[in-house]
Amino acid sequence: MRVLLTGGAGYIGSHTALVLLERGHDVVVLDDFSNSSREAVRRVEELTGRSIPVIEADLADRAAAEAAFDGLEVDAVVHFAGLKAVGESVAQPTRYYRVNIDSTLNLLDLMRERGITRLVFSSSATVYGDPQYVPQDEEHPAGVGLTNPYGWSKAMIEQIIRDTQVSWPELEGVLLRYFNPVGAHPSGRIGEDPSGIPNNLMPFIAQVAVGKREQLSVFGDSYPTPDGTGVRDYIHVMDLAEGHAAALERMSPGVTTYNLGSGNGSSVLDVVRAFGEAAGREIPYVVVPARDGDVAETVANPAKANRELEWQTSRSLADACKDSWAWQSANPDGYGA
Amino acid sequence: MRVLLTGGAGYIGSHTALVLLERGHDVVVLDDFSNSSREAVRRVEELTGRSIPVIEADLADRAAAEAAFDGLEVDAVVHFAGLKAVGESVAQPTRYYRVNIDSTLNLLDLMRERGITRLVFSSSATVYGDPQYVPQDEEHPAGVGLTNPYGWSKAMIEQIIRDTQVSWPELEGVLLRYFNPVGAHPSGRIGEDPSGIPNNLMPFIAQVAVGKREQLSVFGDSYPTPDGTGVRDYIHVMDLAEGHAAALERMSPGVTTYNLGSGNGSSVLDVVRAFGEAAGREIPYVVVPARDGDVAETVANPAKANRELEWQTSRSLADACKDSWAWQSANPDGYGA
Repeated sequence: MRVLLTGGAGYIGSHTALVLLERGHDVVVLDDFSNSSREAVRRVEELTGRSIPVIEADLADRAAAEAAFDGLEVDAVVHFAGLKAVGESVAQPTRYYRVNIDSTLNLLDLMRERGITRLVFSSSATVYGDPQYVPQDEEHPAGVGLTNPYGWSKAMIEQIIRDTQVSWPELEGVLLRYFNPVGAHPSGRIGEDPSGIPNNLMPFIAQVAVGKREQLSVFGDSYPTPDGTGVRDYIHVMDLAEGHAAALERMSPGVTTYNLGSGNGSSVLDVVRAFGEAAGREIPYVVVPARDGDVAETVANPAKANRELEWQTSRSLADACKDSWAWQSANPDGYGA
Repeated sequence: MRVLLTGGAGYIGSHTALVLLERGHDVVVLDDFSNSSREAVRRVEELTGRSIPVIEADLADRAAAEAAFDGLEVDAVVHFAGLKAVGESVAQPTRYYRVNIDSTLNLLDLMRERGITRLVFSSSATVYGDPQYVPQDEEHPAGVGLTNPYGWSKAMIEQIIRDTQVSWPELEGVLLRYFNPVGAHPSGRIGEDPSGIPNNLMPFIAQVAVGKREQLSVFGDSYPTPDGTGVRDYIHVMDLAEGHAAALERMSPGVTTYNLGSGNGSSVLDVVRAFGEAAGREIPYVVVPARDGDVAETVANPAKANRELEWQTSRSLADACKDSWAWQSANPDGYGA
């Protein structure tokens, strides 16, 4: 299969490119490099010994998107492209809605024009909002009471894809709701390279471990969880990437939704401890007040993906910490300037 | 107050322009005339003896929107512009999402750049989806289980406006959820001019009454309602227009949602009967199977708008039928080619 990866130079995109190439597929990366690096693609080429065509284009720009699709021959698309920083989305809502929604609308129109019928969309467990029960399966209410434009944009795009499929029955869509992606390729050659202050826990811890930041702020320690800190379902990015490959290899008519998570919850302090062990050093942290909109616990019920995609996670939190540390320690400044 | 009306040449826009002018405000109409007529604006000028500046522009086109706002001086915006045919939205979802969402994003960005802080948005009771109780107040769940992209686009835009206000606290927003607008200005000079086969009940009946269509199809007569046909809350378009004026005159910080409806339900057969009396002729009809997605009954609880906007409906279904008939009989082809 020849697969277009929009946002394919990003964190999850680059790992998915690697897994798809290793499984014998061809990939094409489309990215505007606004929050990613060409070096990530180069390293995937180096790791796999395969060449990756790269199209530099902003998919949210209609004319640029049309030009990007000119002469493009692919069997499927994995749509990672989009803005993803929760806090920034609160400050810049119209930008987030515009980029995330317009890029998807352009993509859907161009796929339809060209008869590309297979689409995997990078959604998020954020669409579940405040959990009504844990672990959350795909029947959990979604798109209700979300707390930020990033999450709303994911819920809206899910709806847009479902509605598009109604008008275009040939479309085969898969909505993948990620829990908390962490880790890196075990080579340490590719990994998460956040710009500025990391929004996510593990990259922050990794930067503390490598000496770039003084200490971790733990947001709240009086949640109703075993140690009082927030519990999340961390999924190794290589497991997540394999989930995309499984989805692509088992596409079916209609639009199907899958949780991609491990099914296991880990607290902030669990991650601090596991990372400290992997890095062989203590991670200093300070407890600060909980943040508005943060919930006590989210954990995936991944049974549907396990069953229908014949996919399951095989890497532990310790693996993720080890791989994240391999990446961070070898690349203290990420992919560099 | 000087008010920009996007989509101001349309059915509700033109009546609102008239009411605002009569109440001493100034209006500017921005419209792309893709589904409306310059003649409507001309007739509002004629009815009010006032002149209305018209900007012809597609608000969903960023460059055109920017050009339209160049040199524009207004105190508030009423945002009517958008695609509105439910069935068409099912067939053309990406077009509906693109036009309705992009036009709103462009508008919000341009308002912010220019410091225009007052916005009234044309939403719809469609956002309530399948009614959980009747009459529906503003606390009724919204944006859950909707059945078409038109309705989803309204729910999404409401969210986008709320999120924009969080990042831009000066924004004063009012979301007006219309129930079923009907009727026309009593002069019969302006009214609803649907293109093609009318999607809404009263324009269809009016075209049957005037001999343009043979008979009305009544979709279902075994709903759990007094006569078995669907019950809706019909609101006279002049009452609706006055609701917009009331909202503009009582803007307050934050984003506030109001139902605009009469609080009274009328069945399809009630409307057939009332229109027949107003037109002095029988309306032939045939009962056909109910449509997917249609609900038995929706009726507004307009108490919040009554109280906070000091607004209430004053026109009856009979008034709406009389005025609609005055419009239809004097303008059998609407505003003409």
